[in-house]
Amino acid sequence: MSQSALLLEESWDTLRSQIDSRLASYVPQPPDCPPQLREAMSYSLLAEGKRLRPVLVLLACEACGGDPERALPAACAVEMVHTYSLIHDDLPSMDDDDTRRGRPSNHVQFGEATAILAGDALLTLAFEVLTAEIRPAEVAAACCADLAAAAGAKGMVGGQMADLEAEDATALSVAQLEAIHRRKTGCLFRSSLRMGARIALADSEALDAVDTYGKHVGLAFQIADDLLDLSGDEQKMGKPVRKDADHGKSTYPSLLGVTESRQLAEDLIDKARDAIAPLGERSLQLDQLAQFILQRDH
Amino acid sequence: MSQSALLLEESWDTLRSQIDSRLASYVPQPPDCPPQLREAMSYSLLAEGKRLRPVLVLLACEACGGDPERALPAACAVEMVHTYSLIHDDLPSMDDDDTRRGRPSNHVQFGEATAILAGDALLTLAFEVLTAEIRPAEVAAACCADLAAAAGAKGMVGGQMADLEAEDATALSVAQLEAIHRRKTGCLFRSSLRMGARIALADSEALDAVDTYGKHVGLAFQIADDLLDLSGDEQKMGKPVRKDADHGKSTYPSLLGVTESRQLAEDLIDKARDAIAPLGERSLQLDQLAQFILQRDH
Repeated sequence: MSQSALLLEESWDTLRSQIDSRLASYVPQPPDCPPQLREAMSYSLLAEGKRLRPVLVLLACEACGGDPERALPAACAVEMVHTYSLIHDDLPSMDDDDTRRGRPSNHVQFGEATAILAGDALLTLAFEVLTAEIRPAEVAAACCADLAAAAGAKGMVGGQMADLEAEDATALSVAQLEAIHRRKTGCLFRSSLRMGARIALADSEALDAVDTYGKHVGLAFQIADDLLDLSGDEQKMGKPVRKDADHGKSTYPSLLGVTESRQLAEDLIDKARDAIAPLGERSLQLDQLAQFILQRDH
Repeated sequence: MSQSALLLEESWDTLRSQIDSRLASYVPQPPDCPPQLREAMSYSLLAEGKRLRPVLVLLACEACGGDPERALPAACAVEMVHTYSLIHDDLPSMDDDDTRRGRPSNHVQFGEATAILAGDALLTLAFEVLTAEIRPAEVAAACCADLAAAAGAKGMVGGQMADLEAEDATALSVAQLEAIHRRKTGCLFRSSLRMGARIALADSEALDAVDTYGKHVGLAFQIADDLLDLSGDEQKMGKPVRKDADHGKSTYPSLLGVTESRQLAEDLIDKARDAIAPLGERSLQLDQLAQFILQRDH
């Protein structure tokens, strides 16, 4: 592992522990919240995770000259949205996944009704935290608008819908697959970076720079995920591997082959790094993170 | 029907058509949104309804001296949250209701996966509309924080969770039943009124006045609903009646009897009317609406 990757890993651990303790503080407690609901929310939200999206919020804030500490509520909000989407996507009527992050999925552990409600509550909490904690209000409202647009029918939820519809279709084209991933993963990545930049009171050039970075890194991450599904270690991944491949689902490797998929991801990472180069030294960690996308093993 | 009830009914029709056309304008269209998702969102959101919560937003804005037109995005947002909650509550793993507003429930019409996603998308759209359309940003952020707190684990979602848990319990006490209803219905009523007041730039006395009104009217509405479940006309209600009674579910009439329940609702309505009396003439329609709660037949 390169020196820079080691440096990133160290700082990532620090950021992750800040994110984790802030996340825990936001989960509502009894008697305000029914104990079973709190337990189901915490089970998925506080499960061990990379916290990639929250880290992107914090690093984008830093890259645009802001104080990452002030972006922590937005970092937590995007993780809540991500976690809610995992809980709902795992449901029997959706992707029907029994395992997540190395443990039983939320609905396996708590039942379907509680899992649906825990997801609903986490999605709602994201907007509560954003608007209650981010200042000034103009920035809170802009972050909220960004996150909602990214998470909703035109973004992540629309991507999941398109993905479910695609399961019944014959093999997709690369353009169709890309369109699904841009919605399902890309939108939330981009909104993470945009929120971080907004909290740093970035100008429009800097906002565009991190947004472009997010667009490319989001797609590269998805391609890396497809490659890991083929070659990954189930223990490290915390979920079954080869699921997509064995289900005949269209993936980048299935459409382009492993070598070409890897090359595409590398090209996207180069584009992402180019986009933030004008931000200078402060964007060093974002730059390192982009390189890490293809090195990860889980 | 009294003269004032007739006047309210006329103005209600006008408000409702404004709300309905604005709601329709907010549903995202293809190609931004998958056609099936748009259809499922529209099916429930644009179904015929009283639009009680949105009307409360507009009347609260008027009662506090604001222009109701400016509150339309918030009125639509609360209807989106209400509609999402109906879609998810009707799911087989929750209340398992096949009929809603006189038509097949969303999941019966579109399947469970699409229904879950349509609900998720409507909840998300509520926050997108609020923060993209309400100005100034301070008011947008405050409305968003109010609505999220009311809809989430401490409010509506927590109420649904407590309600599901209560199904397994023996008969509830009146205090337990009230606590569930305050969360399940009351919180969203109160946030409707608070958002209307905030958009009117109300001072804290006026905000408190409409909030107190919402608290009492919300509970009165729920008691009226329980009474209608006993005596209502299935055709007018658009859903099966006597469902709660036949399932042995605790309701106000089952715990207190019909006469005492009616008296309690009347007392709550008096308290609601007292709360907004200091707002004077501009609160006349809110006053009429409170009286209407016990007169409605659907």
